[in-house]
Amino acid sequence: GSARFGLAYDESQTEETRIEQRMRVNITGIAETDAGVKLEARFRLEANEDSHANDISGRGPGAAGFAVSYGGLRVDVGNVSNVLDSGDQVDYYGYGVGFTSFLEHNANFNGPATGFGAGSQDATTIKARYNVGDFSASLSYKETRAQAAVANAPGVLGSTAVAADEEWQLGLGYTLANGMAIGAVYSDTDSSGDYWVIGLNGTAGAVGYSVIVGDGDNQADASFGASINYEVSSATSIRAVVSDGGAANADTSYGLGFRHGLGGGVTLAGGVGSKNDNTLADLGVSFSF
Amino acid sequence: GSARFGLAYDESQTEETRIEQRMRVNITGIAETDAGVKLEARFRLEANEDSHANDISGRGPGAAGFAVSYGGLRVDVGNVSNVLDSGDQVDYYGYGVGFTSFLEHNANFNGPATGFGAGSQDATTIKARYNVGDFSASLSYKETRAQAAVANAPGVLGSTAVAADEEWQLGLGYTLANGMAIGAVYSDTDSSGDYWVIGLNGTAGAVGYSVIVGDGDNQADASFGASINYEVSSATSIRAVVSDGGAANADTSYGLGFRHGLGGGVTLAGGVGSKNDNTLADLGVSFSF
Amino acid sequence: GSARFGLAYDESQTEETRIEQRMRVNITGIAETDAGVKLEARFRLEANEDSHANDISGRGPGAAGFAVSYGGLRVDVGNVSNVLDSGDQVDYYGYGVGFTSFLEHNANFNGPATGFGAGSQDATTIKARYNVGDFSASLSYKETRAQAAVANAPGVLGSTAVAADEEWQLGLGYTLANGMAIGAVYSDTDSSGDYWVIGLNGTAGAVGYSVIVGDGDNQADASFGASINYEVSSATSIRAVVSDGGAANADTSYGLGFRHGLGGGVTLAGGVGSKNDNTLADLGVSFSF
Repeated sequence: GSARFGLAYDESQTEETRIEQRMRVNITGIAETDAGVKLEARFRLEANEDSHANDISGRGPGAAGFAVSYGGLRVDVGNVSNVLDSGDQVDYYGYGVGFTSFLEHNANFNGPATGFGAGSQDATTIKARYNVGDFSASLSYKETRAQAAVANAPGVLGSTAVAADEEWQLGLGYTLANGMAIGAVYSDTDSSGDYWVIGLNGTAGAVGYSVIVGDGDNQADASFGASINYEVSSATSIRAVVSDGGAANADTSYGLGFRHGLGGGVTLAGGVGSKNDNTLADLGVSFSF
Repeated sequence: GSARFGLAYDESQTEETRIEQRMRVNITGIAETDAGVKLEARFRLEANEDSHANDISGRGPGAAGFAVSYGGLRVDVGNVSNVLDSGDQVDYYGYGVGFTSFLEHNANFNGPATGFGAGSQDATTIKARYNVGDFSASLSYKETRAQAAVANAPGVLGSTAVAADEEWQLGLGYTLANGMAIGAVYSDTDSSGDYWVIGLNGTAGAVGYSVIVGDGDNQADASFGASINYEVSSATSIRAVVSDGGAANADTSYGLGFRHGLGGGVTLAGGVGSKNDNTLADLGVSFSF
Repeated sequence: GSARFGLAYDESQTEETRIEQRMRVNITGIAETDAGVKLEARFRLEANEDSHANDISGRGPGAAGFAVSYGGLRVDVGNVSNVLDSGDQVDYYGYGVGFTSFLEHNANFNGPATGFGAGSQDATTIKARYNVGDFSASLSYKETRAQAAVANAPGVLGSTAVAADEEWQLGLGYTLANGMAIGAVYSDTDSSGDYWVIGLNGTAGAVGYSVIVGDGDNQADASFGASINYEVSSATSIRAVVSDGGAANADTSYGLGFRHGLGGGVTLAGGVGSKNDNTLADLGVSFSF
């Protein structure tokens, strides 16, 4: 599990500062057959602030995700990441700024990334990844079946139906001799068309870097994102993020942050940034257990 | 805990095949007094597909069940099985077909079996079982108290009240010298009248067999069910189920399935069958952890 | 975790006796930095009867509570106790009667005590406690931010908004050389005014005693409460509680109970009492695991 708490600032809110608080516990079951096939199942319990109003609540267990892995092949089924979210080939999120990663280098992207969480899902995803040497390929299929309209939760007028939808994603990745990884993801969704992202990331001494470029039928302009992490010392690093493009007339998003390890799995981190012309900042601790 | 996933086919659905997926974790607390009385409490977290539309969600923790056991006596209280569901004397479910046990030999029965689960309960059950030598007796009482009408969940018109109800169940069982077990359960529910089931089960070499007969005020004809499990090898078994009677003009339900142990608590299983003239089938893996 | 079940009697109900049943599991994550700062996060899963109608359900995970402690300083953040609930300086609940503690010596008090539980919270609490020698001081701040009206849950007409509120609490405590602890809590809430409680507790041989006095803008008269626990033997104790004052024309609340340890963390307990002229009683077992 993991937990984090601290302060978060959001210029767009009436009361700009809130207490940020989150606790997550993944419950994972693992089994392995005599032939060495590994099976996993997991779901998540989580507590979070609901909004900037400091109201807090728990949720979960969410829908479960399953995995089967054997040698270089891994198949995920259920409430699981699709190729873009998985990071199998493209590092879509990069080095986030702040202890809540409030700004990531995909800020100006509108890519169809869906992943595991503590909630329910209206769709089931199947993803297969195959690694062979320095090469990897992933394929995911996400199917949403039509469901009749159901009245909304209290306080929300009207009713919501689920429309049928299908999404295919293909990812290809290659790691160069110097450790630099390059990859591409292509996504085709019935409801929102094509999307592609190309990424490149690696490390050079104390510097880690990640760059992505992408575009799709659901955004006006191509998007660009880059983030770097510089290890000032063994415990402290500085991060910078920039993301641009996407919607017509989109503002450049950018931010700067730091992380400092306190030992025992505890990290103090914070950052400031601008996301679509809105100033954000945070400072807090996170820890794993 | 346990988990399973695979494919399930249902002829009656528009999209006949779905991804079957389930993860269960029971959280159990145990204590034992100096005098050797054992106390248990448990509740369940579960994730499941909600419907054939591949939508999935988690639920729980559900209502808790408690148990006190000492020597041959065990008392269960709360969200617990009644006598028919417990299997204390009668094997009401038999050898199920498929990795989801989509067909069991009680398919054509309408018996009042209620058990532990990840949900809430409007009733509290108390069951006492006493074993002495080859003989066992169980008695359960389930009380539902009247509750005022509450509006239904979003999407369901109207409101629902809970009506008061009472259910008594008595079970008697005896194990013969050759290991064959015979048993009977009699149930009397205020709202739906009497129900009785007689069962017989045992093993003969590689064959396990279970037969039940039952009838009640809530069904037109007497019901019959039988299931067998044949161990082809140490890892593989074949199962067959048949169930008949019950509702007027009911169709015979029948099915055939297999199970194959892969080691490490992993089982590959599947089956095909007909339940009330509707064809069902499944294939998948289940594992415990 | 902990669990309890047994019988509870309430004179004011139509069906006076119910099965009392509860199971609680706290999930706690702990980490410690190299400098010795300890961080904790926890949330709770719980199953309970919902009402006297024997309907039962689970809830949780609730909102999380966090703690940072270092030397004599401890800071709690999130879904955590305020000063009055915490018992840091004043023993607000004393020695409860019955295995469910259905009567405590604050029965006739109307003090603003809020604590950790398995539910959501509309407010975030921060509490700091500092211990130095025999002296301790605690300060808590609980902020509720305004939220727009949301329609009520099914079955409850209308909608509910959350109004902004602020609460400050200060507690001071001192432990005398003979082990007797004295303390005071002062609370100031925007919505309900001032409240103060003074307490004194300690042990004299086999007798434990606790006394509190308090008053506030939200009650007509000052309140008084006292409870004692007498250890008859190493396993058995008898408890008595009295609470008086508070609302105008309030009846004196009083009760008598026993506790008997069965070993292995199991306790048999029960009691009878009168709370605001309503007779209550219970008998059951509780255990921790």
